[in-house]
Amino acid sequence: MINEAMKELGNKRSIIREIFEYSKQREKIVGKENVFNFSIGNPSVPAPEIVNKTIADLAHNFNSIELHGYTSAQGDIEVRSAISQYIKNQYGADVSASHIYMTTGAAAGLAISFKALCVNDDEMIIFAPYFPEYRVFASVNGVKTVSVNPLENLQPDLEDFKAKISPKTKAVVINSPNNPSGVIYTQETIKDICSILTQKQKEYGHPIYIISDEPYRELVYEDINVPYILNYYNNALICYSFSKSLSIPGERIGYIAVNPNMENCNDVYAAVCGAGRALGYVCAPSLFQRVAAKCLGEVADTSIYKTNRDLLYNALKEYGYDCVYPDGAFYLFVKTPIADAGQFCEKAKKYELMLVPADSFGAPGYVRIAYCVTTQQIERSLPAFKKLAQECRQ
Amino acid sequence: MINEAMKELGNKRSIIREIFEYSKQREKIVGKENVFNFSIGNPSVPAPEIVNKTIADLAHNFNSIELHGYTSAQGDIEVRSAISQYIKNQYGADVSASHIYMTTGAAAGLAISFKALCVNDDEMIIFAPYFPEYRVFASVNGVKTVSVNPLENLQPDLEDFKAKISPKTKAVVINSPNNPSGVIYTQETIKDICSILTQKQKEYGHPIYIISDEPYRELVYEDINVPYILNYYNNALICYSFSKSLSIPGERIGYIAVNPNMENCNDVYAAVCGAGRALGYVCAPSLFQRVAAKCLGEVADTSIYKTNRDLLYNALKEYGYDCVYPDGAFYLFVKTPIADAGQFCEKAKKYELMLVPADSFGAPGYVRIAYCVTTQQIERSLPAFKKLAQECRQ
Repeated sequence: MINEAMKELGNKRSIIREIFEYSKQREKIVGKENVFNFSIGNPSVPAPEIVNKTIADLAHNFNSIELHGYTSAQGDIEVRSAISQYIKNQYGADVSASHIYMTTGAAAGLAISFKALCVNDDEMIIFAPYFPEYRVFASVNGVKTVSVNPLENLQPDLEDFKAKISPKTKAVVINSPNNPSGVIYTQETIKDICSILTQKQKEYGHPIYIISDEPYRELVYEDINVPYILNYYNNALICYSFSKSLSIPGERIGYIAVNPNMENCNDVYAAVCGAGRALGYVCAPSLFQRVAAKCLGEVADTSIYKTNRDLLYNALKEYGYDCVYPDGAFYLFVKTPIADAGQFCEKAKKYELMLVPADSFGAPGYVRIAYCVTTQQIERSLPAFKKLAQECRQ
Repeated sequence: MINEAMKELGNKRSIIREIFEYSKQREKIVGKENVFNFSIGNPSVPAPEIVNKTIADLAHNFNSIELHGYTSAQGDIEVRSAISQYIKNQYGADVSASHIYMTTGAAAGLAISFKALCVNDDEMIIFAPYFPEYRVFASVNGVKTVSVNPLENLQPDLEDFKAKISPKTKAVVINSPNNPSGVIYTQETIKDICSILTQKQKEYGHPIYIISDEPYRELVYEDINVPYILNYYNNALICYSFSKSLSIPGERIGYIAVNPNMENCNDVYAAVCGAGRALGYVCAPSLFQRVAAKCLGEVADTSIYKTNRDLLYNALKEYGYDCVYPDGAFYLFVKTPIADAGQFCEKAKKYELMLVPADSFGAPGYVRIAYCVTTQQIERSLPAFKKLAQECRQ
């Protein structure tokens, strides 16, 4: 009688959440320091000091009625202007304030964008490995997700991509630095994706949008440029989040930036506003809109993530694991030494290693290791990874 | 090609927003003090001091990673426990933490509840005058809203209500204190609604839910008890918001409380969680979850609203307007002296009075006056109301 699909979705814990909860139980039994919980992508570094300072300053000194009042549905105009200016300075893209829509994080941005662009029976292309919630946001709109296979290096297989675009394809989601793999799509990959889409748009005579999911944009550990999609493709929009850059994932603040060069840019922006309204997003949290604007360009101290990555990657390689070197985000994607990732994760549990099988990320035979933990946890976990490798070889 | 319904929704400004923008233009021309903007329900009193103090305290003293980290999707367990305890103390209802789901305000609560309970082709009953966004949240789920007429005193016409319940009726929305009328449904009205529904449930053999939209619960100016719906009806849930009680509407914080006595309460709660997930609500803003928990029972100083109400109501009655006495919220609902409320509002504009015709609230022939303004504005506006009444009598 009620909405069964929603009930099922609510009852079906994500595999990540399940393993996380199991970790908590084990911690009670064997002690927190003996459980190696690599399940969840919760930042382990505090927000930059300026974040908490700004919050307190605003609370003390800003007019309370204005500070906590409704902003316009698109977001406070000064906040959007500051972001517009930042994008211009940082990436050279000319996104005006009236092309920016403040959201309660990237998830809201995605849910709103999917709703704005898609109608029942559309198709949306996602690149495996992918963030599982894309399929949730698509399915609630009656949209079918079509998954493109990765190459061995986890860049998308562009031949497979080409083959999977159909006249029903409304949009393509890219996510780089990638959750769950930590891989950054090269400039060449991005250019190729765009040129394939440009050709297909011509062939089908209608736009195919790129939705770029960018919560990990600033989490890059090498001297690598993460291509700014609006400079490569007109029919693109970005779902940005301050969750990871500012280590404030619970505060739910981000934005959608619509490319002003999009052919029907005002219509798409209007549809974004309409979708936000229809989904109950009155405005993004007003205090954090202002915090975000005042902290543009600030990034939490992510050096611990780099330390963790190097430590874990090098050790796992040494133990014989087949890992893909992650340039960004805080995930390590590891090929399981036995074919079934679920079975491998069960074996890992014997050593109190909590890993996430990547089947629901569209990549069976892999596990995701979220290394946004303390470096001590990494160090203490290494012998367990070593024993697990040995067991799997037997 | 994109979602046309969303585009239309985004382009179609609400009438409230339109009049608000017109006010701003007039302010530039004739001066802010000469424009009487009664269009928008934005609280005009600051948050209680404890709100900003708590924000600053948390920013300074609470562990940053925990403070700004993801909470569980349902909300932080300590926050939900505090709310559960508050509900028990305040209303005697036994709503455990596991029946509470934190939301980004009442609008999100409504969007989530509608999604959780309803499927395509369901019907939902709303009582005129009603908050126009109910129709948006319903329509996006393929749900038809059925409007019940009010009596002269703006309590619902229960005969009409009875007649409009059908086997397709999935839910009934109540909103008391009411936006746009300020009217509080009497205990008798609530009891009658519940008893009618109980009988209809039996007749049709399936639950009919009450969704109680309660952002104005604490804004009551007389010694009137606002009945707590969970004590009257099992198949009920509450969408609460701290927006008005704490004067923090931009921060988007509230909750859904599901009646534990509901027959399929766990299923409904699961569907609420699933709908929140599907609509992109990862968790409610984490800092403000904690602020809300620490400020339970606090209410902004609403004495100015009472002063404004008395001043405005008495003056308008004196000038010959037919108003419904509002016991709560911060709206005055006035019968227009000429039949067409739109025309009346146009006339009012000549006197720089910015009023909202209530057609989109389901009540043609009325205007809504949002008196959450300064008392000075009320005082300065009275001669204009007087002249307008005179003009209409001619």
